[in-house]
Amino acid sequence: MKRLLITGAGGNLGKICREGLKGYANVIRLSDISPMDPAGPNEEVVQCDLSDRAAVIDLTKDIDGIIHLGGISIEAAFDDLLQANLAGTYNLYEGARQNGVKRIMFASSNHAIGFHKRTTKLDDTSEQRPDSLYGVTKCYGEAMASYYFDKFDVETVSVRIGSCFEKPKDRRMLSTWMSPRDFISLMKAIFNAPMTGHLVMYGVSDNTSKWWSNDHADFLGWKPQDSSEQFRAEIEATFPPEDRHDPAVIYQGGGFAAKGHFED
Amino acid sequence: MKRLLITGAGGNLGKICREGLKGYANVIRLSDISPMDPAGPNEEVVQCDLSDRAAVIDLTKDIDGIIHLGGISIEAAFDDLLQANLAGTYNLYEGARQNGVKRIMFASSNHAIGFHKRTTKLDDTSEQRPDSLYGVTKCYGEAMASYYFDKFDVETVSVRIGSCFEKPKDRRMLSTWMSPRDFISLMKAIFNAPMTGHLVMYGVSDNTSKWWSNDHADFLGWKPQDSSEQFRAEIEATFPPEDRHDPAVIYQGGGFAAKGHFED
Amino acid sequence: MKRLLITGAGGNLGKICREGLKGYANVIRLSDISPMDPAGPNEEVVQCDLSDRAAVIDLTKDIDGIIHLGGISIEAAFDDLLQANLAGTYNLYEGARQNGVKRIMFASSNHAIGFHKRTTKLDDTSEQRPDSLYGVTKCYGEAMASYYFDKFDVETVSVRIGSCFEKPKDRRMLSTWMSPRDFISLMKAIFNAPMTGHLVMYGVSDNTSKWWSNDHADFLGWKPQDSSEQFRAEIEATFPPEDRHDPAVIYQGGGFAAKGHFED
Amino acid sequence: MKRLLITGAGGNLGKICREGLKGYANVIRLSDISPMDPAGPNEEVVQCDLSDRAAVIDLTKDIDGIIHLGGISIEAAFDDLLQANLAGTYNLYEGARQNGVKRIMFASSNHAIGFHKRTTKLDDTSEQRPDSLYGVTKCYGEAMASYYFDKFDVETVSVRIGSCFEKPKDRRMLSTWMSPRDFISLMKAIFNAPMTGHLVMYGVSDNTSKWWSNDHADFLGWKPQDSSEQFRAEIEATFPPEDRHDPAVIYQGGGFAAKGHFED
Amino acid sequence: MKRLLITGAGGNLGKICREGLKGYANVIRLSDISPMDPAGPNEEVVQCDLSDRAAVIDLTKDIDGIIHLGGISIEAAFDDLLQANLAGTYNLYEGARQNGVKRIMFASSNHAIGFHKRTTKLDDTSEQRPDSLYGVTKCYGEAMASYYFDKFDVETVSVRIGSCFEKPKDRRMLSTWMSPRDFISLMKAIFNAPMTGHLVMYGVSDNTSKWWSNDHADFLGWKPQDSSEQFRAEIEATFPPEDRHDPAVIYQGGGFAAKGHFED
Amino acid sequence: MKRLLITGAGGNLGKICREGLKGYANVIRLSDISPMDPAGPNEEVVQCDLSDRAAVIDLTKDIDGIIHLGGISIEAAFDDLLQANLAGTYNLYEGARQNGVKRIMFASSNHAIGFHKRTTKLDDTSEQRPDSLYGVTKCYGEAMASYYFDKFDVETVSVRIGSCFEKPKDRRMLSTWMSPRDFISLMKAIFNAPMTGHLVMYGVSDNTSKWWSNDHADFLGWKPQDSSEQFRAEIEATFPPEDRHDPAVIYQGGGFAAKGHFED
Repeated sequence: MKRLLITGAGGNLGKICREGLKGYANVIRLSDISPMDPAGPNEEVVQCDLSDRAAVIDLTKDIDGIIHLGGISIEAAFDDLLQANLAGTYNLYEGARQNGVKRIMFASSNHAIGFHKRTTKLDDTSEQRPDSLYGVTKCYGEAMASYYFDKFDVETVSVRIGSCFEKPKDRRMLSTWMSPRDFISLMKAIFNAPMTGHLVMYGVSDNTSKWWSNDHADFLGWKPQDSSEQFRAEIEATFPPEDRHDPAVIYQGGGFAAKGHFED
Repeated sequence: MKRLLITGAGGNLGKICREGLKGYANVIRLSDISPMDPAGPNEEVVQCDLSDRAAVIDLTKDIDGIIHLGGISIEAAFDDLLQANLAGTYNLYEGARQNGVKRIMFASSNHAIGFHKRTTKLDDTSEQRPDSLYGVTKCYGEAMASYYFDKFDVETVSVRIGSCFEKPKDRRMLSTWMSPRDFISLMKAIFNAPMTGHLVMYGVSDNTSKWWSNDHADFLGWKPQDSSEQFRAEIEATFPPEDRHDPAVIYQGGGFAAKGHFED
Repeated sequence: MKRLLITGAGGNLGKICREGLKGYANVIRLSDISPMDPAGPNEEVVQCDLSDRAAVIDLTKDIDGIIHLGGISIEAAFDDLLQANLAGTYNLYEGARQNGVKRIMFASSNHAIGFHKRTTKLDDTSEQRPDSLYGVTKCYGEAMASYYFDKFDVETVSVRIGSCFEKPKDRRMLSTWMSPRDFISLMKAIFNAPMTGHLVMYGVSDNTSKWWSNDHADFLGWKPQDSSEQFRAEIEATFPPEDRHDPAVIYQGGGFAAKGHFED
Repeated sequence: MKRLLITGAGGNLGKICREGLKGYANVIRLSDISPMDPAGPNEEVVQCDLSDRAAVIDLTKDIDGIIHLGGISIEAAFDDLLQANLAGTYNLYEGARQNGVKRIMFASSNHAIGFHKRTTKLDDTSEQRPDSLYGVTKCYGEAMASYYFDKFDVETVSVRIGSCFEKPKDRRMLSTWMSPRDFISLMKAIFNAPMTGHLVMYGVSDNTSKWWSNDHADFLGWKPQDSSEQFRAEIEATFPPEDRHDPAVIYQGGGFAAKGHFED
Repeated sequence: MKRLLITGAGGNLGKICREGLKGYANVIRLSDISPMDPAGPNEEVVQCDLSDRAAVIDLTKDIDGIIHLGGISIEAAFDDLLQANLAGTYNLYEGARQNGVKRIMFASSNHAIGFHKRTTKLDDTSEQRPDSLYGVTKCYGEAMASYYFDKFDVETVSVRIGSCFEKPKDRRMLSTWMSPRDFISLMKAIFNAPMTGHLVMYGVSDNTSKWWSNDHADFLGWKPQDSSEQFRAEIEATFPPEDRHDPAVIYQGGGFAAKGHFED
Repeated sequence: MKRLLITGAGGNLGKICREGLKGYANVIRLSDISPMDPAGPNEEVVQCDLSDRAAVIDLTKDIDGIIHLGGISIEAAFDDLLQANLAGTYNLYEGARQNGVKRIMFASSNHAIGFHKRTTKLDDTSEQRPDSLYGVTKCYGEAMASYYFDKFDVETVSVRIGSCFEKPKDRRMLSTWMSPRDFISLMKAIFNAPMTGHLVMYGVSDNTSKWWSNDHADFLGWKPQDSSEQFRAEIEATFPPEDRHDPAVIYQGGGFAAKGHFED
């Protein structure tokens, strides 16, 4: 790949990508709303607010693929989500369309399906059940991706990412954990695939306890290497048992599903 | 029902509702962004821009049910849709939540699934495939409705409305047509039902040629009475045969699916 | 048919059958645990406790088909259900097997699936979710029927009967009502069919508001003629609106699902 | 339509079409392996052996649509089927491809699925289970149709025809009967539809006892008007009850499924 | 867990549990209808007939979880099954309800689905097809479990156990075998899970030849470690090839499906 | 097994079988249209044209099982396919029926489903979508196999073989590759299984990037040992990236789907 754009490059996932994808493209353009570390070799650093359409159209020039991590990635006030995630995602797709970008990895979220119970196994045909305004913006992003593929032939893999950290941070993450290594290998699989169309899948390691199936995405050739099981003993020793009448335990979205309205 | 709110009451569907639902509630509050005819008996008329949150929260006070027809109902510039359909829908749901409104009829659209082929029979489990930015905002509205039901117990019936006119206006509408009479009987069925949860269904008459199944919604007890078939001869005499290689013929969304980007 | 046995012939459904099926078989043998009206022409009347195995084996001699309405048909103490519905059903199937009875109509019940929500459309593949001990005994009866067909070639149509009365008695019955006329025509369709295997279906009229599909049973050639819709206005005028947070409204089993344990 | 070709025009279905479709196209070209009645107004009569490729390619010149009833329509020696149905169908599709024919009605048969039990409801996703060598040739024809659509854009509606006669001739036909009137209206619906792709459906009237669903083909706008039910009393009075252990009763294909090998 | 009850603790599976779960709970209460070895450290031994309701209600006092292996586990006379498995299971659930037991492992059986063919892959949505009266009582137990969860919030994992022995004992067990080690790890997974609802799953090791899928139960985090494949050569050398026309080979239930009625 | 017949024994797969199955049966009869190497120990070599019915019936005498690799295995002129694949397959099944052969491995092909997109995961319920005349003959073969099982109890495993070579030869084969070792172990699994009925499955190794599921065939006990992943680096270094607008890349059938008509 000649030039890969990573939005939200200053955030947690963005940093994992910046580090893990070094050398993957001739040039990696890194963008974030906040200042980032200066560009290293084969890097371009562009500070950019995704809600600024003209800036985003500029940002996506000469780009072959985009890892779209930008925008707000937690529950937030609607007006903030409106700009960062609703306008921002549109702007990004418009940039992609106008500049001929071929494929986008859209960082969707498990919070797009967070009101499914943990006892339900999901796949790509499961209905969206967002657990937060943030989750609603991710459903919207998936719809936008579908539209831009059907009409403008811009391909997207919408990855409903679980919890990507060095290790699981609580009992729920035993099921949702995605190792940074698996995240990076997924990014590569997505851009190596000859064809993706608009694909919805889950970003999760090969955990023993799991809620999501990626069988439909086998054509990608991605096979996660890690499992949260190695951390189970430590996690279970650290965190008290879960109460099955707690909405944060009942629903896949965890705390997001349990919380009331952001602005209350 | 004590007090029913109809948004977008000045539009095509709004006028059908205003006329057809006379007397259905003790008071019907009518709202539109544009001026409307003055209030008749048991009516309240409130001009209101749905993108004005405070106004919308005020508008939804003392309301039991909402027929939400407001916002933009055709393809439009994204910035207009952002205000009217994205912010507007959020504002409406926030009003409903804060004021304890029990149930909403959300006017979704066949354009939320317009990139399915006409040869595909859809039901409530079919994936969203919006055919326009407008369609994307309807997918978003359905996600918002799902969220407000799962978390705040505000029920919604998201009706993917076909084409509601006195009679079909072209060959495609032989399949998508919904008579005003059927539209009104559906509105009543929705608010009479003891329970709806969040339900996605199709707003279409009992046409002989059809693309959508409402079997899953039989609990509502709604049975359309009209069929486009009575107009077939007239329509086929008026409009030339369709070209099956035309995207407007291939896809359920018709012209919406065939058009390029709004702003080009 | 030469000789048809009706168990529970003294109950509500039994009386409907006795009346409605006059002349349908050369001889109709009527059985009940309680005394019945004396035998009319072409009738045999046999008082019999279904929990008495020897008596039941005797009862099923020279019989071609059985309409099994006997046993307890409401929630009851477990020990009573154990005898009447658990032992009783086994006894009946043993009688059928030993005496070469070809086909049985087993009166299952909507209470075998009563913990499904009203917003869920069921068919024969829906999982059993009994709403009462009574409902559990009906699930058991369906399993017994399956076993006797698979191993002993005794055919059964397990009919999950809704509410069979002259007219609906409350709002819920607008969905569950089965007219006596439709009940009788179903009994005839069941015994006229060349082959049934073990079939699970729903006993319900062609109501506008419905929860159950019998599409899979179309081979039977049964088509209900009545609809509860004619009674809607009267019912809605008589009974107050339903509260959607009431388990009796949420679940298909109505009051059965809402009640606590029988013996508490 | 300018010019419609009917193959097998001298057979039972062919005669129904010749009569019922008079005037439907500017010219109707009639072909059969045997001599036919001379051409009437707007008719062309061409005697043609479908296994003669050059003749078939000639036969399909200047044709817009084809109703392909030709070939052998009962069980036969394999070598006869090889010529008439295997080579013949290929020849027809090659003629269509080379001459730019847009759409074909392929007379498939219920014998392509005749080894399904009568208690199983089928639709277009049901697996093929042919009950005869004849049935195998119909499966082959459906595969050929699929291929010519996917690669060469020749559309086909493969109609698995039940039993098309003036009235049902035995008990089985109460389920498989298709009235000539419904057959004709289906032919018209197929050629009137703007788009069909390759569609597999069932050719059957609106019988009360039925085994097949055409719900997926609703987009065609075809609605059968007749039902075998009017003939039930007469048929049941004429034919003895069916034995459910007879393969001709167990399986949908009836006698075809029950017979041994043709050449034994 | 504070106090775990194991019923049927004197049987094959009971002994595996007694040994394998040593130390898993503060106290393990062991019950059987027959005398057992005396209580070891942290054990309580209670001889109890499950058909004695009062005794069972006493037995379940102060219990957090139950592994319900008690009752009859082979084909038997109906009257014996009536007491041990029908009354016994009710008694156990009543004890659980009255004493606030949170979760039960119900030892269902592959004989609840034993009349499915071996060539059919089953999961939790497969219909019950019991192969014996014993199998019918297991279907009943699953229905009882469903009921007590839906109404009384007592959770159950109904495990359709295959064949749990040190090693497979015949060719069929190459597919149904569950190692004692995998059985024990499943018991732990069941009681460790934060939430189970009523879950139906299969108790089987990771055999290469298998008939059952537990994909839907992945949330449990159970992963069997053993496979029967290591025993294949030995088994195939010991037992003659199976005859595919033998019901014991055709059906998953093996000998249970092939045998006639117990009391004949 | 006493005597196994391998047709097409002189071709690529035939040679793999001849080598890999040495000693698997008491006698292996090898047949091909062309001359083969002379018979080794426990081998019989019979040159035979499959379109010669009498010869084929002779060829299948005293045979217990058949690996049917014969016929044409690439796109070809229809008249050649007619003899080799259409008549030839019928002849083989007639031979099997007349001579009491118990089970056949039919070499179907991925080209029977080659017009599915690569992004679609297929299993045994996926519709046939042949990509060539050759593929159509494979669909026909599967239908013939279904017929001979349903009516004559000749079992078949129809294996839709991917690409069986020492190693993958292009990027597409990273998904379709089947190692010779896995092919041989599949042949053994097929003839070792106690029962297969008519089974449709895919012949493919355990590649990381895959399009096909064999979960439904788990009862066979076959587990591929190889994966194409070891060859990925080499293949990607050798072959240029694929163009996702090329039909050979879009469709599973690769070049077969992309090519026009054979005889053009």
